[in-house]
Amino acid sequence: MRRAIELSARGLGSTSPNPVVGCVVLGPDGRTAGEGWHRQAGGPHAEVHALAAAGAAARGGTAVVTLEPCNHTGRTGPCARALVDAGIARVVYAVADPNPLAGGGAGTLRAAGVEVAAGLLAGEAAAVNAAWLTSVRRGRPHVRWKYAATLDGRVAAADGTSRWITSPAARADVHRLRAESDAVLVGSGTARADDPHLAVRGVPAARPPLRVVADTEAAAVRPGARVLDDAAPTLIAVADDLPAERTGRLGADVVRLPRAAGGRGLDVAALLAALHAREVRSVLLEGGPTLAGAFAAAGAVDEVVGYLAPALLGAGPHVLANAGITTVAEALRLRITDLVRIGPDVRITAVPGCLPEEL
Amino acid sequence: MRRAIELSARGLGSTSPNPVVGCVVLGPDGRTAGEGWHRQAGGPHAEVHALAAAGAAARGGTAVVTLEPCNHTGRTGPCARALVDAGIARVVYAVADPNPLAGGGAGTLRAAGVEVAAGLLAGEAAAVNAAWLTSVRRGRPHVRWKYAATLDGRVAAADGTSRWITSPAARADVHRLRAESDAVLVGSGTARADDPHLAVRGVPAARPPLRVVADTEAAAVRPGARVLDDAAPTLIAVADDLPAERTGRLGADVVRLPRAAGGRGLDVAALLAALHAREVRSVLLEGGPTLAGAFAAAGAVDEVVGYLAPALLGAGPHVLANAGITTVAEALRLRITDLVRIGPDVRITAVPGCLPEEL
Repeated sequence: MRRAIELSARGLGSTSPNPVVGCVVLGPDGRTAGEGWHRQAGGPHAEVHALAAAGAAARGGTAVVTLEPCNHTGRTGPCARALVDAGIARVVYAVADPNPLAGGGAGTLRAAGVEVAAGLLAGEAAAVNAAWLTSVRRGRPHVRWKYAATLDGRVAAADGTSRWITSPAARADVHRLRAESDAVLVGSGTARADDPHLAVRGVPAARPPLRVVADTEAAAVRPGARVLDDAAPTLIAVADDLPAERTGRLGADVVRLPRAAGGRGLDVAALLAALHAREVRSVLLEGGPTLAGAFAAAGAVDEVVGYLAPALLGAGPHVLANAGITTVAEALRLRITDLVRIGPDVRITAVPGCLPEEL
Repeated sequence: MRRAIELSARGLGSTSPNPVVGCVVLGPDGRTAGEGWHRQAGGPHAEVHALAAAGAAARGGTAVVTLEPCNHTGRTGPCARALVDAGIARVVYAVADPNPLAGGGAGTLRAAGVEVAAGLLAGEAAAVNAAWLTSVRRGRPHVRWKYAATLDGRVAAADGTSRWITSPAARADVHRLRAESDAVLVGSGTARADDPHLAVRGVPAARPPLRVVADTEAAAVRPGARVLDDAAPTLIAVADDLPAERTGRLGADVVRLPRAAGGRGLDVAALLAALHAREVRSVLLEGGPTLAGAFAAAGAVDEVVGYLAPALLGAGPHVLANAGITTVAEALRLRITDLVRIGPDVRITAVPGCLPEEL
């Protein structure tokens, strides 16, 4: 299964709106007969690739799959049927398919006399598939919030300069995160201050992620902004009460959304719903502090990736603002899932929730 | 030498104002004949302990020492002479003694026909001895700044609550830092907000560190403050222009110092000089943000130890304030020397300066 999970991760960034899936087919002798992973939406599923590689050796063998085999005829046929037809005797999968359209593959397999076991390394497999699982379970894209800051939590100096706080190595790593995402999102403050390009550089990307700017007043993205070039598609989200003439001049796709109730900016749930409707399953939220605060307050941060540079500023804007938290007991508690040094910097990855004994 | 450095570290917290030193004596056959470390000021030096343990096996052997053997008769005799008298044929040391009083041991050894080699693992040995080396080279105590913050760099929530941001494991680690220090220092804001005790708990400390409050206006430490109990000695630093009646009521030792030129608070150099005069060789600066900013601006932070809790607040005071930095090019750049997880938290240790290729 560990090998199948590794294989599944190769699909990150190219399978959306589908999950990433890896599959290893073992022959009756227990040896690996074929491997496969889902490479891109519309292409064959992992099981089909692995069965093709295994050929006749699959008969009487075991299929080890990271996700419950699908029961669904979409652009490809149901994998449960393909496994039965190939003579697979046993299927071991990690994570059950929560998708009402595609689920039920395990039942189909059992009905055909195939032995089925579930749950092996489910946590690890689910982590790789976090974007897709979140989108199915919550009906909105998975949100990974990335920030780059000094040790004292500043994302820019007092004069607004921020280039560069982190090292080239850390910045290159951000392009890898972008390449894994369906969309990259910034707020109007970042659009105004940095004129960011938000495209993927230096990393092979199956398709460039959608660039999204939450520009409530349609005032931050100006004609000629770098985000409007043809490196990738772009979506500007604006308030639905703006006059039409404010939004027609950019040549970009514009979506009109309700404002946040009682707050600044756009309604976070509406913004995520609009992205979900565009088949965006994973969003890389790149800031700034106000937008990140709105997402945190809405409970819409599924993963935090912080790049910390060993530097101190003592002044300047902070990583996160206005998250609606006033006392330490209300702090948004996370659990660290990864901690690595990247060049001279540190990358901390965390997800919401902590174990009770950690408090 | 690695073993000698390990031995030297056992003296941290109990040898001040002396250095920590470790020594391994090898017999002529290359086997370890004796080990020793400097245990406390006024007690025998590391070499004397190791020679005593080795006995006759030292004759014709090698002494491996983390610091150049002293040439100085203080409360104990010169180690260079003790090594010669024991018949040691070869001395390998890591760091040269920069102390004008005690240095020159290598010359004495060579003059007596002992082979001398220097510099082995000098960086590692110097790191353990950072407090003492800083105090000798700069004429002021080594300053280790410790902070505990959320991932977004907050040391408290918007309402001022800060108990507890970090885990019990991280807080226990801070007591280890205190036990290694000669003094623990906070500013008036922390004294007023937290009424901290600043004593060492849960860790054996050779002697309790001096508790120091930089209370410029003599207004933050009130009679009955926890820092005034008898758990450890306490020093209150106040401005030298205050009327005497403002400072006489606490029963604690009070030192009157000049105010910072053109700024808030006390002059950092004068405060450090006052501590140095009291044989304080290492200071654990525990905040708050304003005092830490003044130390950073004065170039008086020699090491940063940050405890980061995987939590977000989005509001509240920051780790560091008013360090005099306005643009990112002026950022105080550090180099990470250690990165570990402590319970659910992360501890980042860094020292000023970075390698040119890291920028």
